Amino acid sequence: MPARLEGDRVLIDDPVEASQTYNRGFFGQPLRGGGLALSLLESVFLQEAGRLEVASRGRTVGIKELLRAANRSTPQFEIKYVVYRDLRQRGYVVEEDAGPFDFRVLPRGGAPGKTPAKHWVQALSERAVFDIEALAAHLEKAAGARKSLLLAVVDEESDLTYYAVKRVAPAGHEKPSRPAEVPTAHLLEDRAMVVDEAQGAALSACGFYGKVLGRRLQLSLIEAAYLLKRGDIEVRMADSDRKISLAGLLQRARRAQPDFDLRLRVYEDLRGRGIVAKTGFKFGAHFRAYDGNPQVHHAKYLIHALPAKYRGMWPEVSRAVRLAHGVRKQLLFGAAGTEIAYLRLERVRP
Amino acid sequence: MPARLEGDRVLIDDPVEASQTYNRGFFGQPLRGGGLALSLLESVFLQEAGRLEVASRGRTVGIKELLRAANRSTPQFEIKYVVYRDLRQRGYVVEEDAGPFDFRVLPRGGAPGKTPAKHWVQALSERAVFDIEALAAHLEKAAGARKSLLLAVVDEESDLTYYAVKRVAPAGHEKPSRPAEVPTAHLLEDRAMVVDEAQGAALSACGFYGKVLGRRLQLSLIEAAYLLKRGDIEVRMADSDRKISLAGLLQRARRAQPDFDLRLRVYEDLRGRGIVAKTGFKFGAHFRAYDGNPQVHHAKYLIHALPAKYRGMWPEVSRAVRLAHGVRKQLLFGAAGTEIAYLRLERVRP
Repeated sequence: MPARLEGDRVLIDDPVEASQTYNRGFFGQPLRGGGLALSLLESVFLQEAGRLEVASRGRTVGIKELLRAANRSTPQFEIKYVVYRDLRQRGYVVEEDAGPFDFRVLPRGGAPGKTPAKHWVQALSERAVFDIEALAAHLEKAAGARKSLLLAVVDEESDLTYYAVKRVAPAGHEKPSRPAEVPTAHLLEDRAMVVDEAQGAALSACGFYGKVLGRRLQLSLIEAAYLLKRGDIEVRMADSDRKISLAGLLQRARRAQPDFDLRLRVYEDLRGRGIVAKTGFKFGAHFRAYDGNPQVHHAKYLIHALPAKYRGMWPEVSRAVRLAHGVRKQLLFGAAGTEIAYLRLERVRP
Repeated sequence: MPARLEGDRVLIDDPVEASQTYNRGFFGQPLRGGGLALSLLESVFLQEAGRLEVASRGRTVGIKELLRAANRSTPQFEIKYVVYRDLRQRGYVVEEDAGPFDFRVLPRGGAPGKTPAKHWVQALSERAVFDIEALAAHLEKAAGARKSLLLAVVDEESDLTYYAVKRVAPAGHEKPSRPAEVPTAHLLEDRAMVVDEAQGAALSACGFYGKVLGRRLQLSLIEAAYLLKRGDIEVRMADSDRKISLAGLLQRARRAQPDFDLRLRVYEDLRGRGIVAKTGFKFGAHFRAYDGNPQVHHAKYLIHALPAKYRGMWPEVSRAVRLAHGVRKQLLFGAAGTEIAYLRLERVRP
């Protein structure tokens, strides 16, 4: 006997068929009286698998019509379906959620009502906005419930990429020390240099600052601002030898780099955690970061400094994660709110 | 006898010293009467190497003072110097150019006035704007003179990355054919699907279109628009079954993707070249592209579709090149002017 399409549900009235459908994979919600109510996601999946026949007012409902009903009743049905189908095909029991998550995924072999969910999953189109504030909030909610958060991003060819998101607290072993003598750095357009060779060597040894170029130590603007704020250098104009204040340096730096303050905040935070941060230009990231001596270790992290309310596009995020993965580094977004929240995104296969 | 700093030049009057300096690496411009005029780039380099002493009005000019003069007289002196120094240290004879290129680099063992230059080099700060129109113009100029164009990008820590730029004409072996029967695709929010299994299989075989999901063939919006424009499909709304015109489809597609027309132009151009283009989402690119059967070969290219007057930031470009390199694909920018100009950027060590 075919199941009945009613609005956004498909009902199996026959108790034997209902219990068979429920027992082979925990599809649907058992009803009082022995029936089963399937969602449209479940129904399309079961119909495609040849496990379900659907009718409405005595007429057979084909896949096309069922999909039409699903698309009418469920926003982003196709996106959700691609994710639902993939998780089911991987052997997971998947429960639908009212939001902000789309699915609760039980560990393999788990049963609804008995086994707690392992993952909470959000199904997203690659065209969705990447909203770091919402993501941080969802992450907190998931972490509070001891669930791992997976973002399932569907591209325009229905290919699926899963991202595991975690909040992390990077920590390193290289807290900077202070130079015995305050060296002088001369400010160029977008960098500063310590011309005195001995001063440069001493400063560099305090925290792996800068880069030796010939006999001079070149500091990045971020390093120069950080050191000047600590009182660990004095900065003078390269052309006039005039001394420049922190405010003056920041003003110039903002002209070269509008998000300078944001980057400096994350840089300071990382330095306070014993992490040595260097430019991530070669990787298209703001920083590459070392938890130990950068002359001995590879960088562990690629870090992007983002405003706490940053909204971006998923293809950008996808690119950043892919690149970090390719060079075996962890990708962190440092969201600068009242504190810096570090979110790690990682491609996974659930 | 020390050389004399005069404005933006350093003059060696002694003919013996002048010819020694010139002969060991072709530094400076020989003057009538046996002297030599060095640029400030050359002078800083030679002074740092301990090969030059400079004086002005009887006083020794130290490195600090020479750099001050250089920064005063030459915009972006440090950027140029980092590149100049690196090329010289790699054993190249480097001539300064008036622009738009900064340097002409001779092949190793070459001599100025005898050996034609091999590379034309532009020295850029990572904060410089990436201007595709200017780049295409420079490339044309360099190609016309049979020089290879190198972009030397200096990051804020004075690390240097060279990019070789070439104009290329991608060509493949998979020109699409047309289906015997025009299949119907149903339009969802941001994709379309051919529900009829036989129609889907036939369409897919014409040009590796779409992706089979269950029994349906899913087409991307780009594929749907391309096929509709060719008259190779008809498109209907998934909810109402109402037929939709190309104009209607494009209007919807632009809502999902503001740069849809740009991408479609590049997609059409690639298809006309026998290239199979698919979404590059996983790589953060617009397209991944195959010059042969995508079921057998790996994608050869990652392609970004850009407006002909696109201006972007170098860190974005750096990231895209790095990523393509990591997955062993060629990065192409498809600049859509009156025709599509494909520029390949590749990291190189000169």
